[in-house]
Amino acid sequence: MTIPSRTQVAIIGGGPAGLLLSRLLHLDGIDNVVLERRSRGHVLGRIRAGVLERGTTDMLRQAGVAQRMEAEGELHDGVELAFGGARHRLDLARLTGAHVTVYGQTEMTKDLYAALDAAGAPVLHEVEDVALHGIDSTGPHVTWRRGDEVHRLDCAFIAGCDGFHGISRQTMPGDVLRTYEKVYPFGWLGVLARTPPVNDELIYANHAEGFALCSMRSRVLSRYYIQVPITDRVQDWPDERFWAALRARLPAETAARLVTGPSIEKSIAPLRSFVAEPLSHGRLFIAGDAGHIVPPTGAKGLNLAASDIHFLHRGLARFFASDDESGLKDYSAKALARIWKAERFSWHMTTLMHRFPESSGFDQRLQRAELDYIFSSEAAMTALAENYVGLPYE
Amino acid sequence: MTIPSRTQVAIIGGGPAGLLLSRLLHLDGIDNVVLERRSRGHVLGRIRAGVLERGTTDMLRQAGVAQRMEAEGELHDGVELAFGGARHRLDLARLTGAHVTVYGQTEMTKDLYAALDAAGAPVLHEVEDVALHGIDSTGPHVTWRRGDEVHRLDCAFIAGCDGFHGISRQTMPGDVLRTYEKVYPFGWLGVLARTPPVNDELIYANHAEGFALCSMRSRVLSRYYIQVPITDRVQDWPDERFWAALRARLPAETAARLVTGPSIEKSIAPLRSFVAEPLSHGRLFIAGDAGHIVPPTGAKGLNLAASDIHFLHRGLARFFASDDESGLKDYSAKALARIWKAERFSWHMTTLMHRFPESSGFDQRLQRAELDYIFSSEAAMTALAENYVGLPYE
Repeated sequence: MTIPSRTQVAIIGGGPAGLLLSRLLHLDGIDNVVLERRSRGHVLGRIRAGVLERGTTDMLRQAGVAQRMEAEGELHDGVELAFGGARHRLDLARLTGAHVTVYGQTEMTKDLYAALDAAGAPVLHEVEDVALHGIDSTGPHVTWRRGDEVHRLDCAFIAGCDGFHGISRQTMPGDVLRTYEKVYPFGWLGVLARTPPVNDELIYANHAEGFALCSMRSRVLSRYYIQVPITDRVQDWPDERFWAALRARLPAETAARLVTGPSIEKSIAPLRSFVAEPLSHGRLFIAGDAGHIVPPTGAKGLNLAASDIHFLHRGLARFFASDDESGLKDYSAKALARIWKAERFSWHMTTLMHRFPESSGFDQRLQRAELDYIFSSEAAMTALAENYVGLPYE
Repeated sequence: MTIPSRTQVAIIGGGPAGLLLSRLLHLDGIDNVVLERRSRGHVLGRIRAGVLERGTTDMLRQAGVAQRMEAEGELHDGVELAFGGARHRLDLARLTGAHVTVYGQTEMTKDLYAALDAAGAPVLHEVEDVALHGIDSTGPHVTWRRGDEVHRLDCAFIAGCDGFHGISRQTMPGDVLRTYEKVYPFGWLGVLARTPPVNDELIYANHAEGFALCSMRSRVLSRYYIQVPITDRVQDWPDERFWAALRARLPAETAARLVTGPSIEKSIAPLRSFVAEPLSHGRLFIAGDAGHIVPPTGAKGLNLAASDIHFLHRGLARFFASDDESGLKDYSAKALARIWKAERFSWHMTTLMHRFPESSGFDQRLQRAELDYIFSSEAAMTALAENYVGLPYE
C-alpha cells in the first residue's frame, strides 16, 4: 500500500472508535486514514468489554459489519443483581422493550478490520511519534514516523480516537481543556476461563467481602471479576484463591453451580472516572477513551465510544455533504450531555455494588436500602434498566 | 385531673408521634397516658416541617382530626427543582396519582391536643426525671417527678416518642442497640416571614453558592431556607443579608418576584441522618425522632413518625384485641424497612441539591448530570416523585 500524504479525515487510533468512524466515513465516500501505534495483533489481544447497547449494535448494522454479531452474539433480556444472599432480576425487555448483546470488543474489532481490509481502506499500524499540527487552522496535518521514514498527512479534520494515554487530548491547549476525575480505592481482578458461565445472564454481586461479577464471552467462555484492593498484584491471586473468593461472594445456590477451570487470562484493572471538556478544538475532535473513562460497572466504555462516533460521524458527513458545520460545532456538547449521564450511571452502579474501604455502617445500610428500594419500585427498576440498555442518543 | 398510676400504654413524649398514637389508641378503647417534659406552649412553639404525605393525612383522618387540615391545608400537585438557572417541575399528580398537603406540624399538634382534650385523655406536661423500668419484663413501669412529688405509672407497654434527645432510646441496653449516623457539613438557616410565598409550590434550588428552599406555611406566611456553613450563627445573618443570599440562589425571574419582609423567626438547624436498630426491646417500642433523624430535604421527618405510629398502633391494637403479638414482634423490622428507604431518599435529595465543601469538579458535574438525567427520564422523575409523596406503608 502506498502511504497516503493527503486525506479528508485523519483518524488517530485504530481501536473500535477509530475503526468504526473510518468505516462509516468510507461508506459515505469520505476519504480517511487510520494511524495506529500498535500492531494489529496487539489491538486484537486486548480483552475488553462485551456488553453492547442497542445503539451500539445499530451502529454496527449501519456500518455493515453486524453479520457475525447477529449470528454469534447472545441477546440478553435481563441482568441480575445479587445482594443479601439472593438474586434479583432486572427484566430489561419488559421494563424497556430493549435488550443488550453480549459480543466481545475483540470480535467487533475483527469484523471492522475485515470490512476495512475488503474495501482497501488505509489502516496503518505501528506508526510512531504521531504529532498533530495546525489544529487551530483550516489545514491541519499529522506527522508520524516508521523506522527512519518521517511521514506527513495533510487533512481537513483530525479525529482523536487514541485512548486515554493518546496524543490527541494532550494536543489540545491547556487553557481550553478542563478535566474531571475520580479514582476508586479498589481494582477489578478479572479471570477468563474456558468453562460454561454460571448463569445465562450477567450477575452483579454486592457482598460484604466486595463486589463480584459473573460475565461471559460465549457459552463456553466465562469472564469473572472480583473487587480487590488496588495494591494487590496478579501473583497474589492464584486460581484457587480467586475461585474461593468468587464463590464466597455469590449466593450459596449460585456458588454451588460455579464451574471452575484454569484461568487463560488474569489481570487487575484500576477503576477510574474521567471526562475532558470540550471534546473538540479547531479541527480536532476527540472521541472514546481519549475523552472519557468510566469504571467498568455497567459496561458503558465501549458503548460511549460508539455514541461519540455517532455524533462525530454525523457532523463530518453533514460537513462533506453540504458544507454544513452545525454537526461539528455541536459535537462536543451533544456527546458530553450523553457522556455525563453515562458517567453518572457508571459511578452509581460502582457505588451501589462495591464495598468501599472508608464506608461507614450508615453508608452500608444506605446501599442496602437503595437495592431494596430499587427492587420494590417499578419506576426505580425502569430507571436502572433504561441506563443499562443505553439512554437515547439525544 | 387525678394523676393515673396504671394504664395500658405509657407514651413518653407529647409531640406529634406520641399524640397521634394516644389518639388512635383512645379510639380503640385502649387506655394510655402521655408524659411530656415540656409545657404545651413550648411544644406548640416549635416551627417544624409542614409537608404531609398521603399516608400521614390518611392517619389524621383515621384519628378523626383532619377537619381543619382539610379546610386549611394546601394540596400540592407538584414540586419544583431549580438548577442551571431554570426551574423544572415534578408533576407529582401525573407521575404518581398522589399529592402532598402543606399543613404545619404545629397545626397538626394543635388539632391532636384539641381532640385529646375533648375526650378527657391524660396528657401530662412538665413531667421531670422520666425513667423507664422493667422493659424486659411483662410489667414495666415509668417513674417521673413534678416538683417534689414522685409518681409511678404501671403499664403493659411503653411507647418511646420522646425525640432524639429523649430517655427512651437511651434506656435500651447498649449491647442490643446499634446506631448509624451521618452528619452533614452545613446547616439550614430558616426564616419565617409574613409575606406571600414566591411560588404556589415548593422550589428546591441547587446553586453554586449553596442550596435554597422556598416553602410556605400558608398563602400569607413564607418559609425560606438557605444552606449555610455549620459554624455560622443567626446573628451573622441580618434579614438583608439573608434575602440577598436567597435571591442570588434562585433563577433570576423567580428572584425578581420574591417579596421580602421582616423575619418573624430565624434559626439555624444542623443536618443529620441517624437510625437506631432495633426499634423495640421487650415492652419498649420507640418511634419518630427517638429512633431516627433525617435531614429536612424532602420533608420526611414528620411523615416517618406517622408511619412508625401506623405500625406501632396496629401492633398494639392487635395485641389488646386478640392477644396477637405478631404486630408488635415485627414492628421494628416493618418500620425500619420503610425508614431506611426514607433515609436513602433524604440523603439523596440532600446530596443532589446541596453544595458540599469537599466536592470536586467531578462531583459537581455528576450532580448536574443527575439532575439533567432525572428531568429527561419519565422513570427517574417517577422514582423521585413516588418517594416525595411517600412510599407505601409496606
